[in-house]
Amino acid sequence: MVLLVLDLLGVAVFALAGALAAIRARLDVFGVVVLGIITALGGGVIRDVLLGITPPTTLRQWQYLAVASVVSAAACVPRATVPARSRLRKAILVADAFGLALFVTTGTAAALAVGAPPVAACLVGVISGIGGGVTRDVLLREIPLVLHRDIYALPAVAGAVLVTSGNALGWPSTPVLVAAAALIASVRLLAIWREWDAPRPRRR
Amino acid sequence: MVLLVLDLLGVAVFALAGALAAIRARLDVFGVVVLGIITALGGGVIRDVLLGITPPTTLRQWQYLAVASVVSAAACVPRATVPARSRLRKAILVADAFGLALFVTTGTAAALAVGAPPVAACLVGVISGIGGGVTRDVLLREIPLVLHRDIYALPAVAGAVLVTSGNALGWPSTPVLVAAAALIASVRLLAIWREWDAPRPRRR
Amino acid sequence: MVLLVLDLLGVAVFALAGALAAIRARLDVFGVVVLGIITALGGGVIRDVLLGITPPTTLRQWQYLAVASVVSAAACVPRATVPARSRLRKAILVADAFGLALFVTTGTAAALAVGAPPVAACLVGVISGIGGGVTRDVLLREIPLVLHRDIYALPAVAGAVLVTSGNALGWPSTPVLVAAAALIASVRLLAIWREWDAPRPRRR
Repeated sequence: MVLLVLDLLGVAVFALAGALAAIRARLDVFGVVVLGIITALGGGVIRDVLLGITPPTTLRQWQYLAVASVVSAAACVPRATVPARSRLRKAILVADAFGLALFVTTGTAAALAVGAPPVAACLVGVISGIGGGVTRDVLLREIPLVLHRDIYALPAVAGAVLVTSGNALGWPSTPVLVAAAALIASVRLLAIWREWDAPRPRRR
Repeated sequence: MVLLVLDLLGVAVFALAGALAAIRARLDVFGVVVLGIITALGGGVIRDVLLGITPPTTLRQWQYLAVASVVSAAACVPRATVPARSRLRKAILVADAFGLALFVTTGTAAALAVGAPPVAACLVGVISGIGGGVTRDVLLREIPLVLHRDIYALPAVAGAVLVTSGNALGWPSTPVLVAAAALIASVRLLAIWREWDAPRPRRR
Repeated sequence: MVLLVLDLLGVAVFALAGALAAIRARLDVFGVVVLGIITALGGGVIRDVLLGITPPTTLRQWQYLAVASVVSAAACVPRATVPARSRLRKAILVADAFGLALFVTTGTAAALAVGAPPVAACLVGVISGIGGGVTRDVLLREIPLVLHRDIYALPAVAGAVLVTSGNALGWPSTPVLVAAAALIASVRLLAIWREWDAPRPRRR
């Protein structure tokens, strides 16, 4: 139940991030809704395919598609939600941060629930979290956030390790999930706010 | 049997669309054949992975690869099939329209055949139909048709819903499949011919 | 055992190819490591998903992630491994050639091991071999090597056919695997060295 709620929250913020990115790329209304839906459902589909859950839960339960469609369509209503170009970029990054936090957490938990060993659970969680955003950026011909945003993969891995450790130590799962999501989101938001930059490898 | 024929027809037109797109992007002969094959087989592979059919039927039955290879190679024969640059774009769109129509239809039917619930069957069908074209466009670094062509996802969804409804109501499957494919193809061709444009979300 | 060693060698050279490509695209340290890991693990994940092995072995066994991470991180140490820009391109192509050779070979063998029929085994092997490199190039917004490098798919197919034939004829597997990998790598290296070009389809 907690998992479903967190999952649907993740779907909602990823749909928003996808739709805003599509608006920024000047796609038409259908393109905005389609990219919102793909971004929102992508991570969950990848997770379920990796875990052998077919057809993916994300496609089988109507709530996922409903949330993704409504949020993406709502993002097209001009005056209400579309901010000026300068604020659009930041809004995408913030929505993406929450989506990453929620999907890494639920992805890791879903993998543990079907008996995946710790390393696999962490990797499936991280892939599930970055999957939707990578798909969104590739479809818009942009280099994915995870590759040129410093401090993106790192908090995702930390959150996945926290969920896996909590599970191994028998901690109660709901607080651990919430703490892991909060950890990932806050580090990402801090990185966006302070514009942290990782060192770049030098070339001779 | 009807499914296999429709499926192979879809493979043939998608191979053509992929090969022509590669020719337009000035790839060499091998690149043209490889992209034709990837475009033709991509949708079916994605469909089978989502349905848990492994290894995918598309890879297991030699007819798929044979049709995809022959059509892609034939598209390289210069005088016979390669039209002038101005007509190349339209030929790609038309071949893509038929491929979309056939794959959405067979994808939805294949999902229903393995017992997928209605929503999942529609989504698997739509993903299967747009999957090959999206892969083709991403590999050529173009924004996928489904995102910047208005009236692309919409007829695909309509066709998938028609197949699923017909199945639920117990209608005979062959006429329903043909009708759904005709519906998708005719709406897409009309949209290409009339150059319909969906409204674009305004920005302040 | 032989399969695991060849597989890990493939992971190592693909991690190197991915990391060097990321350095060339001027990503920061985290981006370099992430792209190295994605390139190194991508092919194996695709292979296992196509074969229905979930969660993928590549994600389940820690050795894969360990080799991929260490090699990717090592590629960031400036003076030791990063060559001048002019030599970077060639180093990427050479590492990619060895990765292709190893992954096509092990991918075909893994497919045969789970009972895939010959055509499917060849296709899974080829997809597994080109998958990592295609993912790398798409994420960096480059047209994949397999599409614009002549003589790329061809040796991959030849190697997969050799492994499948050897299996059908009951030849001892280790020498066949090594011979197939050597065949693919040497044809690719020769093509890189001689800058062979496939004919381009003419346009009227």
